Amino acid sequence: MRTYDAYRKMTEEALLPMLASLGHIPSRLQEAMAYSLQAGGKRIRPVLLLAANEMAGGSAEDALPYACALEMIHTYSLIHDDLPAMDNDDLRRGRPTNHKVYGEDIAILAGDGLLNAAAELMASAAVKTDNLRGLHALEIIMRHAGVTGMIAGQAADVTSEGLEPDAERVRYIHEHKTADLLEAALEAGLALAGAQEAEIAAVREYALHLGLAFQMTDDLLDVKGTAETLGKHPGKDLEQDKMTWIALRGVEGTEEDARREAEKAQEALETLPWDAGFFAAFARSLVGRTK
Amino acid sequence: MRTYDAYRKMTEEALLPMLASLGHIPSRLQEAMAYSLQAGGKRIRPVLLLAANEMAGGSAEDALPYACALEMIHTYSLIHDDLPAMDNDDLRRGRPTNHKVYGEDIAILAGDGLLNAAAELMASAAVKTDNLRGLHALEIIMRHAGVTGMIAGQAADVTSEGLEPDAERVRYIHEHKTADLLEAALEAGLALAGAQEAEIAAVREYALHLGLAFQMTDDLLDVKGTAETLGKHPGKDLEQDKMTWIALRGVEGTEEDARREAEKAQEALETLPWDAGFFAAFARSLVGRTK
Repeated sequence: MRTYDAYRKMTEEALLPMLASLGHIPSRLQEAMAYSLQAGGKRIRPVLLLAANEMAGGSAEDALPYACALEMIHTYSLIHDDLPAMDNDDLRRGRPTNHKVYGEDIAILAGDGLLNAAAELMASAAVKTDNLRGLHALEIIMRHAGVTGMIAGQAADVTSEGLEPDAERVRYIHEHKTADLLEAALEAGLALAGAQEAEIAAVREYALHLGLAFQMTDDLLDVKGTAETLGKHPGKDLEQDKMTWIALRGVEGTEEDARREAEKAQEALETLPWDAGFFAAFARSLVGRTK
Repeated sequence: MRTYDAYRKMTEEALLPMLASLGHIPSRLQEAMAYSLQAGGKRIRPVLLLAANEMAGGSAEDALPYACALEMIHTYSLIHDDLPAMDNDDLRRGRPTNHKVYGEDIAILAGDGLLNAAAELMASAAVKTDNLRGLHALEIIMRHAGVTGMIAGQAADVTSEGLEPDAERVRYIHEHKTADLLEAALEAGLALAGAQEAEIAAVREYALHLGLAFQMTDDLLDVKGTAETLGKHPGKDLEQDKMTWIALRGVEGTEEDARREAEKAQEALETLPWDAGFFAAFARSLVGRTK
């Protein structure tokens, strides 16, 4: 296994070549997609996919199309989420949002394009292998990204604005908006390496708690952060009357819950037959993060 | 092979059960997706996929998830195309457009959801078979729907509004916005039946000319149709200064071109080893259509 930064660099260097490998894309559409893909960010999902894959005996080079596909899905969800009809954000990672630069029409198409490109890239990679692992990874990723996964979380989020905070609903939103793509990263990474169901179940449990801890710290940052450290406007959740963990449990309660979820994530790693130090360290790093 | 109406009925009866097979979808999102899936329409793409599949010796029942996926992709493209930031249509197939009923935020998510559901359904069907035909069909469909296919056509369309009509550009828009999904239908139908490359090349040629003829008659209907027969407002293309075939060739020139393309489509069928009467009749039916 390599370092977080090594997996992150691999991903960042591959994103635009992967897009170009699809063929000729109209220039303005290509630019809009590239703009958001190059906006930086922590690249958590592709890094976790590549690390999980190598932990289970795979090769990050072979898993790279799936890692890039996952980052494309995350990126499209941010582009559409920032649209005026959704969260109406004009700043993301310290830069103007996609629709501010390219217009709403191209931003909608760039989002659609990244989602489609993700499936296309994975299918194209899977066709080139002589086993079904790539197809399984594709299925796992599309399922977690879809209408019972990430999109379900987004829909629950927009339809919950202004409602009375409710533990079950907040948890549903967090699980799907955030934890589902982390689960996809871990499960797909393992599936590509041919891991067993018991191992996949363990990383699923890890990713669920990791996702909850991650979203809780995200909610905390929205309250405590500054535009400078966040690269986006803080306080948006409150302004939009979002149903967050903070609204339910307050700042201290959420800090406590985030610590507990990060611990549960680490415990889930204990049954794995591999050295999972990379993932334990990542879970610990979430608590107290400042961006 | 069965009749057009039989394939259409099969598709219409399967669309909502296929969606439900994915699992629990938040109710408002599910309703918005179902609203547009149930809006009727000619179901051309799934019908062509099922018919091509049975012409080449396949079974429409096995090909049904792919046919439904293709219709979901077509449906999502209409939902996003109708948004205020795109074509800003409030009427589609005689009913209010998706965002008029569910709001822009849910309409964006319903579109994303249908695109994602399409890939997910195909992956789920492909995983259940012990050969790679399903994966090939998935790859074909996502490629034709993507940033070098249908989405490329949409992007070229929105960035061409108001420009001087140009033959190469109009053809590019038509080929990608319309012909690509018809090609996907024919090619995927054949791939699922295990057809040979020469046969796939012949149906690709057919679908290209069919797509051009179809889009030309669509442009003609926008000029000559009424809201009553069309189920949407005519004259939108002119109003939005769209780069259509009419702008380039006039009404009579476009009628002539549409006839010629429909003939070329029929000629492309001649090398096929099967009775392709179904497809020849369909190409003939396009010329002079009134809706």
